[in-house]
Amino acid sequence: MSILSIDFGGTRTRVGWFDADLHLLARDETLSLVQDPQAVVINRIIDLARRVVPPGEKPTAIGICGPGPEAYTGLIMNAATLPNWDRVPLAQIISEAFGGVPTHMENDGNLAALAEYHMGAGKGANPMLYLTVSTGIGGGVILDGRLFTGWRGLAFEPGHLKFPARDGKLYSLEALASGTAIGRLARERLAESAEPSILREFPAVDGRMVGEAAQGGDPLALDVIQEAGHWLGLGFLALVHLFNPQAIVLGGSVTKLGDLILNPARQTMRDLLITPLYDGPDLIRVAGLGEDVCLIGAAYHVRGLVQSNE
Amino acid sequence: MSILSIDFGGTRTRVGWFDADLHLLARDETLSLVQDPQAVVINRIIDLARRVVPPGEKPTAIGICGPGPEAYTGLIMNAATLPNWDRVPLAQIISEAFGGVPTHMENDGNLAALAEYHMGAGKGANPMLYLTVSTGIGGGVILDGRLFTGWRGLAFEPGHLKFPARDGKLYSLEALASGTAIGRLARERLAESAEPSILREFPAVDGRMVGEAAQGGDPLALDVIQEAGHWLGLGFLALVHLFNPQAIVLGGSVTKLGDLILNPARQTMRDLLITPLYDGPDLIRVAGLGEDVCLIGAAYHVRGLVQSNE
Repeated sequence: MSILSIDFGGTRTRVGWFDADLHLLARDETLSLVQDPQAVVINRIIDLARRVVPPGEKPTAIGICGPGPEAYTGLIMNAATLPNWDRVPLAQIISEAFGGVPTHMENDGNLAALAEYHMGAGKGANPMLYLTVSTGIGGGVILDGRLFTGWRGLAFEPGHLKFPARDGKLYSLEALASGTAIGRLARERLAESAEPSILREFPAVDGRMVGEAAQGGDPLALDVIQEAGHWLGLGFLALVHLFNPQAIVLGGSVTKLGDLILNPARQTMRDLLITPLYDGPDLIRVAGLGEDVCLIGAAYHVRGLVQSNE
Repeated sequence: MSILSIDFGGTRTRVGWFDADLHLLARDETLSLVQDPQAVVINRIIDLARRVVPPGEKPTAIGICGPGPEAYTGLIMNAATLPNWDRVPLAQIISEAFGGVPTHMENDGNLAALAEYHMGAGKGANPMLYLTVSTGIGGGVILDGRLFTGWRGLAFEPGHLKFPARDGKLYSLEALASGTAIGRLARERLAESAEPSILREFPAVDGRMVGEAAQGGDPLALDVIQEAGHWLGLGFLALVHLFNPQAIVLGGSVTKLGDLILNPARQTMRDLLITPLYDGPDLIRVAGLGEDVCLIGAAYHVRGLVQSNE
């Protein structure tokens, strides 16, 4: 059995070629450039995927990590990072490009949760919540070792917890604590104040730059990360009071900031818990599988589907 | 088998005497008056319970609905409505008062959820969320027909979702949408403005009075209920995006306001859903078992525990 795995994210697209034991035999990646026309973006995914398929071979099955709560339908829709994609049948298009092999798409957060539970930092935790904080905020829940997806497969969209911010308007957690949000918060602070900051030297400040400036000690950048961390902590608090998880496993690029963002997040959560029994020394954990977590999860998931059909 | 069931709530205490088929043979109730000294409150519960036990009989088991996420331990602690009760062993005290019979306490929201799932408005819904909006806000989750309680039995405290309100401070959902909150919001509005309202004729306005004034068309009271409904809708939104429930069953005294509070709550939720697929014609339902729901749930639960030990 050979599995082609595709992780189509808002920023990067990754592809992997796995054997039946889920060894990653080949991988490649590129920028998703989702502002390009749909057909261009999709052809870029297919071209990239072809690079990891050995000459003369064909995948037994294809697993795809897709954005949006309805990814399991095979369609891209209601994805925060792809606002203009409306019921695009990505799974079918990719299946046909590889000769019609069995192809299954699932939500990226759900697949990463599966991978971290079976092979990463969440092994055996029950319940285990996975949160990815990157361009957006997504996640997945593992209960009793199985993916929890709710009534219609739409469960666990933690990025869409809504909070009124200082301006009185409602913002989703994704708009307050993701990498995108960190970039926006910094640009607002730079425009509103005259505070000195190394960020003033750059024309277009994004979340990654803010993270680097914060790691270098820039006070404005540190303040912004602290604010995003506070909102993330309010998100943790909601998840902990509702799910009482044994572990919250954190992935995504923002997590690389480590304690810079996690300390204020943990502090906000701890200050507001109704009992410290919700907490534990290892409640909030950094993911173990790195940037290929979705590739691994998609391969794991589609392998299970193929095996249960045999 | 005879079961004594006790529902010790923040406002009222109810007791019931059930046979093995969960027929309610006798019931009584009184005010909890929780501001009295602990011993007085506990003796009042025991005296009330004795009134429904037939002369010469003894319960096979006692089920207690208690407040706070740790009720399952048999102790009252961290209960929002009983802030000064610290690890009070209520289950043991009541067991001893009735000759040491098997006694089990569980969180009131969890037990009401069980009852509504098996015998009420949530039959067969998966996942089913139960929310009680009364003095406080509590609830329970039924997944695949079973109570979901999380890692340490503390799951699902929806009253403790936190939101920053207009003053910038953090409030729990319980402090924004419960009966207690409705009373507070009305008192604040009366103090801050000169708006005419029938509520100005009363010296100490509480949530019940606001509800009655709103039902009579009082504009200030209607505004307050609308505001509480908006916050409740933000709570629904969080629960729906996280659990994707097939039904949210609503109990508690505030629910008696019906569409006055539920319409703004539904509207806020619907306006903010990331896809209408989360919604359904019967997603938000009013509970079916009335004010005895916790009595029924406690009797059902302890009967199951006794039967599994036989």
